[in-house]
Amino acid sequence: MRRFLAHNARRRNNFTNCVLQHGTFPLRIWTSTSSPGHFSGSVTSGGSASAPPLTLDTINPKVLKCEYAVLGETFILAQRLQQKLKENPGSNPFNELLYCNLGNPHSLGQQPITFFREVLALCDHPTMLDRAETRGYFSADAVERAFQILNQIPERATGAYSHTQGIKGLRDTIASGIEARDGYPADPNDIFLIDGASPAVHIIIQLLIRSEKDGILCPIPQYPLYSGSVALHGGSLVPYYLDEETGWGLEISELKNQLETAKSKGITVRALVVINPGNPTGQVLAESNQREIVDFCKNEGLVLLADEVYQENVYVPDKKFHSFKKVSQSMKYGEEDIPLVSLQSISKGYYGECGRRGGYMEVTGFSSEIREQIYKVASLDTCSNISGQILASLVMNPPKVGDESYESFSAEKEAILSSLARRAKTLEDALNSLEGVTCNRAEGAMYLFPRIELPKKAIEAAKAVNTAPDAFYARCLLHATGIVVIPGCGFGQVPGQWHFRCTILPQEDKIPVIVSRLTEFHKAFMDEFRD
Amino acid sequence: MRRFLAHNARRRNNFTNCVLQHGTFPLRIWTSTSSPGHFSGSVTSGGSASAPPLTLDTINPKVLKCEYAVLGETFILAQRLQQKLKENPGSNPFNELLYCNLGNPHSLGQQPITFFREVLALCDHPTMLDRAETRGYFSADAVERAFQILNQIPERATGAYSHTQGIKGLRDTIASGIEARDGYPADPNDIFLIDGASPAVHIIIQLLIRSEKDGILCPIPQYPLYSGSVALHGGSLVPYYLDEETGWGLEISELKNQLETAKSKGITVRALVVINPGNPTGQVLAESNQREIVDFCKNEGLVLLADEVYQENVYVPDKKFHSFKKVSQSMKYGEEDIPLVSLQSISKGYYGECGRRGGYMEVTGFSSEIREQIYKVASLDTCSNISGQILASLVMNPPKVGDESYESFSAEKEAILSSLARRAKTLEDALNSLEGVTCNRAEGAMYLFPRIELPKKAIEAAKAVNTAPDAFYARCLLHATGIVVIPGCGFGQVPGQWHFRCTILPQEDKIPVIVSRLTEFHKAFMDEFRD
Repeated sequence: MRRFLAHNARRRNNFTNCVLQHGTFPLRIWTSTSSPGHFSGSVTSGGSASAPPLTLDTINPKVLKCEYAVLGETFILAQRLQQKLKENPGSNPFNELLYCNLGNPHSLGQQPITFFREVLALCDHPTMLDRAETRGYFSADAVERAFQILNQIPERATGAYSHTQGIKGLRDTIASGIEARDGYPADPNDIFLIDGASPAVHIIIQLLIRSEKDGILCPIPQYPLYSGSVALHGGSLVPYYLDEETGWGLEISELKNQLETAKSKGITVRALVVINPGNPTGQVLAESNQREIVDFCKNEGLVLLADEVYQENVYVPDKKFHSFKKVSQSMKYGEEDIPLVSLQSISKGYYGECGRRGGYMEVTGFSSEIREQIYKVASLDTCSNISGQILASLVMNPPKVGDESYESFSAEKEAILSSLARRAKTLEDALNSLEGVTCNRAEGAMYLFPRIELPKKAIEAAKAVNTAPDAFYARCLLHATGIVVIPGCGFGQVPGQWHFRCTILPQEDKIPVIVSRLTEFHKAFMDEFRD
Repeated sequence: MRRFLAHNARRRNNFTNCVLQHGTFPLRIWTSTSSPGHFSGSVTSGGSASAPPLTLDTINPKVLKCEYAVLGETFILAQRLQQKLKENPGSNPFNELLYCNLGNPHSLGQQPITFFREVLALCDHPTMLDRAETRGYFSADAVERAFQILNQIPERATGAYSHTQGIKGLRDTIASGIEARDGYPADPNDIFLIDGASPAVHIIIQLLIRSEKDGILCPIPQYPLYSGSVALHGGSLVPYYLDEETGWGLEISELKNQLETAKSKGITVRALVVINPGNPTGQVLAESNQREIVDFCKNEGLVLLADEVYQENVYVPDKKFHSFKKVSQSMKYGEEDIPLVSLQSISKGYYGECGRRGGYMEVTGFSSEIREQIYKVASLDTCSNISGQILASLVMNPPKVGDESYESFSAEKEAILSSLARRAKTLEDALNSLEGVTCNRAEGAMYLFPRIELPKKAIEAAKAVNTAPDAFYARCLLHATGIVVIPGCGFGQVPGQWHFRCTILPQEDKIPVIVSRLTEFHKAFMDEFRD
């Protein structure tokens, strides 16, 4: 087992992301400076020298401050090991990498929904619709849907820029889908079709941040897109801690405390980010809790940025997804009461079309003059990609009872979601059986975020290689087993506690080997480092 | 003809983009404040009120400063007229809008390249490849290419996130395409596949701008993505004027003068933007001129941001496109000499796949530590869309002699490019025949940028409605004829001169009616306002 340390010592200089942080002021826990060598694994330098004027000292310091652990060191190390396995298969104690790091289902063998891809292919190459013989190879409702979509686009031109907010007919469809989901009206003019949720987050954060004296309340643990975007746009991340003891509960008292603390430091808090279902934490908020959150935002004059991209990923019968828009409408709040941005994406759910980069933000409760500014910033990038736009409309309006595809579509969807629920439970149980590990249940989303009580000797060993203890654990796990997880330090956590994020996405036939390798590794790790 | 004024007076409050600017310091000509009502045409407010804390006074002032004329007032007015025509066909003196405003070929009837769409459809729905009967409806090389591409993607998953820089196999193909184009090596690790050129521009500008004391040298006239991005990231636009008299010549003496002027104001210039072929100006740079530009950047330590998205759009036999990378390599400059970013896009050329949002930036001459920062910022948005990535690889590696599709592909390509050349010439001649109008030839790109000598009375009339004279002209043209152009004030021009940008993209059968309506309008306009 000494190979853990040996491996690390050799690679010491390559890993500085999750460095140990001592005495960091919690308001700015994300501002550790980046250092040369970080990410160097995946970006091959084309040459040896730098242009004289352009060094880390002369670029925008906000870029330096931005961190994004999800594609950070663990990912890069995994890529390197993958390459090594290919070139020299016997060089590691495992013969394949087991990726539990990214919410990227298709990369792990999840198949796309057939109906969605039929429509996409027909819209890409509409001459297939004109030929009876090819039409015979598609379901009738896919053909009909492709016609519908093409007829909503001037000149049937899926290669043309659309309106900046997206093709109007697709936004109409999405608005109807939101109405069907929530039972409240939705306006297609409130919808901006976007290349995944990330660009929408940037637009809203950029709109709100004037200087480091503006803050955004973000959950800890959080998906690091938020911390990265806040850093990149020069604001302050104001953390609120989710309560692990109560299943990652979101306490209003914690929001209030952190808001007051921020105010006392001269920070103007502009918005509250809520991720529901949670990433990396997997909890699903109760409707009563959501009402409190809406009232908190209303009372404090905050924009509510609701990351609802996992809305279709709920695995437990006692929890249900409610959109914040529905909740605020059920409270009789209207446009004047609360500025709300709801994010949905084609990357998650049962569809998992990450690479197609699609989604929408529904923007309500903003004055028309502010909406014009949002439109203007979005228009700089012209429009989002049309394939992603089409998929977003399909996700919000899938086949219905009576459609030719309905049964096969439902079977595909159900197979994916029920399998995800089983995988979540198996992994959760396996994690909870490990010494010193506790794991809340994955009520939703695609992740487990177990806490590990690391022995002092392990913490010392991590410190010796200038690495956070959970990053050290994740790295040892990767080197010993090929299992890729992301250490908790990339998401934020209560100081002195350690976690990792593990997706539930590997195909079911891989779950047993993940469980056995993880269990064996953990036992050996604890045997080596137990106090 | 008094209807021009009547129309404008009624709409006075809706148009404030191209307001007259008096005594503006040229270094910051883009910093006019935006005003409420701007863009209001296309963004329907979902309600009447604003959230109390969020007003134009409390958002990020950089967002307010950003302007983007291409999707600005003319575009919005045109959309409104289109709607009016639909609802009330007889309400205007024309029965269709003639869009000459956007570089958006498919929206005007240009058909996508068949081979490209065959490959795209097969990659979207690969089960078609497994069925002999459907494969029969695609060209053999499209089938082969789809297999090649799918085999480059783990799990054949076109729905998975790729590497942040794009699928490695596609980058290999693009690098080979660059080598074939330039005759010099290209490294796939230098290539970042992106959702169109815009996100790449943002990444580089964001990297370089630390404060308003950092400047970016941009051509005037310019494509307003650059001014918009510089404003959004809080820098200063340092203009250099293209010389209209010499066919929009780029003079090194002008670059030097503007650089010195900026320095004397305390501005550190970080980069030079060159758009070649030019947008909105249509000129193609001579190789000798490009060598001077490379030397200028090398000597001054500037990043050269080469916008080369119109590289396939050259219409005159005496000009040829040369990439800046090729030029700098031909000068024996290596990685140490000049940091260079070359942009290519699937939106332009003969393909015109604007809505698919694809393209690449080739990044050379940066140190590995700076490249890691570029990678990190790009990774926040995970990756670009896979359809766009596939199209980018096709654009850089189209069918070759001997491939089944080669002849039909070549015929489609040639038909589009030769037709564009004819349209450019017809429109150029028509414009030059108008009283007080002079127009350089469109050597490349997709635009003409004629200069109009406006009579004093027209300038006074524009002033009376608080509008720039060329915006007034463009608005009158639109109301009288349905022809949509973008006023020169949206691109920048020598103070006191007036232009508009007119695309060469309407289908050839529309060109005669555009010429006759424009000619008739111009005569009437001059008759009304002639001094």
